[in-house]
Amino acid sequence: MTPESAIAAFDKQREAFLADLMTFLRFRTISTQPEHAGDLSECAQWICRQLVAAGLAAEIIPTAGHPAVFADSGPPEAGQANITLLFYGHYDVQPTGDLSLWDTRPFEPTIRDGAIYARGSADDKGQLMTHLTAVRCWRATHERWPVRIKFLIEGEEEIGSEHLPDLVEANRQRLACDYVVLSDTSKRDADTPALTYSTRGLLYKQLTVDGPAHDLHSGQYGGAVANPANVLAAIIASLHDARHRVTIPGFYDDVEPLSDDQRRRLAEQALTEAELLAATGSPAPAGEEGWSPVERRTVRPALDVNGLISGYTAEGAATIIPTRAMAKVSMRLVPNQDPDAISRAFDDAVQQACSPAVRLRIDTFGKSAAYVAPLDSPGMQAAAKALARSFPNPPVFAREGGTLPILPMFKRVLGADSLMLGFAMPNCNVHGPNEFFHVRDFERGTRCILRFLSAAGGM
Amino acid sequence: MTPESAIAAFDKQREAFLADLMTFLRFRTISTQPEHAGDLSECAQWICRQLVAAGLAAEIIPTAGHPAVFADSGPPEAGQANITLLFYGHYDVQPTGDLSLWDTRPFEPTIRDGAIYARGSADDKGQLMTHLTAVRCWRATHERWPVRIKFLIEGEEEIGSEHLPDLVEANRQRLACDYVVLSDTSKRDADTPALTYSTRGLLYKQLTVDGPAHDLHSGQYGGAVANPANVLAAIIASLHDARHRVTIPGFYDDVEPLSDDQRRRLAEQALTEAELLAATGSPAPAGEEGWSPVERRTVRPALDVNGLISGYTAEGAATIIPTRAMAKVSMRLVPNQDPDAISRAFDDAVQQACSPAVRLRIDTFGKSAAYVAPLDSPGMQAAAKALARSFPNPPVFAREGGTLPILPMFKRVLGADSLMLGFAMPNCNVHGPNEFFHVRDFERGTRCILRFLSAAGGM
Repeated sequence: MTPESAIAAFDKQREAFLADLMTFLRFRTISTQPEHAGDLSECAQWICRQLVAAGLAAEIIPTAGHPAVFADSGPPEAGQANITLLFYGHYDVQPTGDLSLWDTRPFEPTIRDGAIYARGSADDKGQLMTHLTAVRCWRATHERWPVRIKFLIEGEEEIGSEHLPDLVEANRQRLACDYVVLSDTSKRDADTPALTYSTRGLLYKQLTVDGPAHDLHSGQYGGAVANPANVLAAIIASLHDARHRVTIPGFYDDVEPLSDDQRRRLAEQALTEAELLAATGSPAPAGEEGWSPVERRTVRPALDVNGLISGYTAEGAATIIPTRAMAKVSMRLVPNQDPDAISRAFDDAVQQACSPAVRLRIDTFGKSAAYVAPLDSPGMQAAAKALARSFPNPPVFAREGGTLPILPMFKRVLGADSLMLGFAMPNCNVHGPNEFFHVRDFERGTRCILRFLSAAGGM
Repeated sequence: MTPESAIAAFDKQREAFLADLMTFLRFRTISTQPEHAGDLSECAQWICRQLVAAGLAAEIIPTAGHPAVFADSGPPEAGQANITLLFYGHYDVQPTGDLSLWDTRPFEPTIRDGAIYARGSADDKGQLMTHLTAVRCWRATHERWPVRIKFLIEGEEEIGSEHLPDLVEANRQRLACDYVVLSDTSKRDADTPALTYSTRGLLYKQLTVDGPAHDLHSGQYGGAVANPANVLAAIIASLHDARHRVTIPGFYDDVEPLSDDQRRRLAEQALTEAELLAATGSPAPAGEEGWSPVERRTVRPALDVNGLISGYTAEGAATIIPTRAMAKVSMRLVPNQDPDAISRAFDDAVQQACSPAVRLRIDTFGKSAAYVAPLDSPGMQAAAKALARSFPNPPVFAREGGTLPILPMFKRVLGADSLMLGFAMPNCNVHGPNEFFHVRDFERGTRCILRFLSAAGGM
């Protein structure tokens, strides 16, 4: 089944679909703010109606938090490929932050210079809308679905998808699929889409070091008691060696070696040292010896302090030995590293490095594995082909340094790999003021999804 | 000249002198609070009148801040020992802090169970009053002074004695003396006075490490940019070795070796490991190998973090690479260590330990030398004798871990050593709520100063 008629139908009604996207963007679906619970619920209903309009059986699945939307095109029909795609997306958004930093109001979507400015325009409503629009256009122009199509759209992504794993476990059969398809990432650049096939995992720890019962006078006691801030610094410093490698025993043991093919693809994704310094404002390059900037931030694990506090931090001098010092330390994990094993090894290493003259507490705030999808799967190839036909340049195969805990969860529970087709600009201000999504990318993305549906039907 | 008649005069009028002390304590002389400038000025006038009542020529010396009081018994008379004592003290006090923590009001001195409760009762008005009372009693009972007596009483000790060095420089001739005498320290315990003969110096630094231009997403960039908090931890950790010695090159080069005699005296001053842990609430002993707790906190230099801050420090997790990390780090220096040389060596060592992929700024907030007085001077011997006769137990010769920048300043400008006769209890809540000074120690202290004046006349 070819996508051309559906693409033509989309092109003819572009304005109407764009108007639907604007409606979608007006829902104030800030999941972290309880006062918006009603907005989230209404938005879920609206999505349900969109999916019903596309001819899918759609329903709300309530959770202990915000509801999810599930839809299904139903059992395979004659002539349909024996393939099921589960489109995943989220309708919740980040808070707006300081409104004075926005040029136009975040929930009054505005088009300027070909871009839609609104909270959620890129993350994830605008991108998700390409999926909703594509299925409506397909349905309007075809009697049958090329593949079985399911949707799972949640309302808690921005607050950690707390109830999603249980929901997926409980609906394992209904959600069964060959691939999860999502558009919640970005392009390589304006004319080059990206097919993201890997994310890093996350292990987040908090270290609390308690020393004296209260702050002490550093003159009276300096030198004679263990200083929690000095001890904490020593612990943190012990976690890296001079080559910027993490010293936790066994940390690299299971790290998957990088194939030549993967290395080559990463070089395509490319981020030169100059680009890295420009993007971050860092004074000079840094990182593990023997790896390029893009490798360091995608295929190599990393350990970073995220926060530190102890003692007197205001202006001037206070001569105290602080009673306590605290650090937040997180690790980005790569494929094959077991978060549980690394978590235990981290705790052991930290305890080893800690002076017996203080008390140490370790809290774990997050633990999720890395994810990597095979590049040679039929789904990945179909997605690459659809992207190549929908944008001026062929897609790059990209690895993300960040973490999407849902990917290994889908793999574990449903056995399905994820295909991440990114349509947003890399600099689209996700989570910040003036978030935007190009109208052109809404159009290219919708056409791309239509081509992908067609290609999937031929798998 | 014997002190007995003066002591008898004091004992007879104890109540009147105690009432004077209560008056002294009612002045709200909080030097750090500008609204109390008038109280400080009035208090300085009151002290002036006390000194005039003792037969001294007294005057206010204005400064750019709060005024000082100077007094002088005048050129040597016939029969007077050719010795000049400069009594130093301060009439300013610390803020009260939370009034709800005080059992009675800080500027309404109250006697309970033999102790005077008031802000400044121990630090330093109550102890200084022993000097003022002693000279009044001596004058009332003797025609001549045993030695030449001068007073210098400042109003800015609690805010760093900012204007005192210039004042002393400018009045070098008028302040000329053989010994500075002060009572601003504490006893060993209730019945054992202390003659403090040494303090440590202080070198206070602030390290600011700047990395990326703004907080970065630790997923996107973790591993590829230098993290200022990790770099700062590495710098701090590099400043100590595994034996808890400071690693700054040359740090110990000039440290005066401890004589057997000094070591024996320190053992007398004694603070056992058990006492240290009880006083501090530290879980276990710690410090430089090969030295006892009391040695570590008095005769050995130390390096402590006083404050640390970077990145996200609230509840839960935030996955950022912080743009900046800051630490306050101070060193306590011991006799012979040159604060300027150590300051340069510290800066060099920190710069060496710092990654080139961040920007480092070092600020210096304080720099003063250690001080040690000879134990065998006639003044020290006379003070020891007077203390031994005025308290149940003979005095211990004590070294303080804290810093009194005025002591090396007096030594440098006036060439005079300081004699520190401590009359307050070690736990007298200096700087805290419910500060107290025992009436009995006011009496013992006054008698002790009279005996000391007499002994000084025989030097």
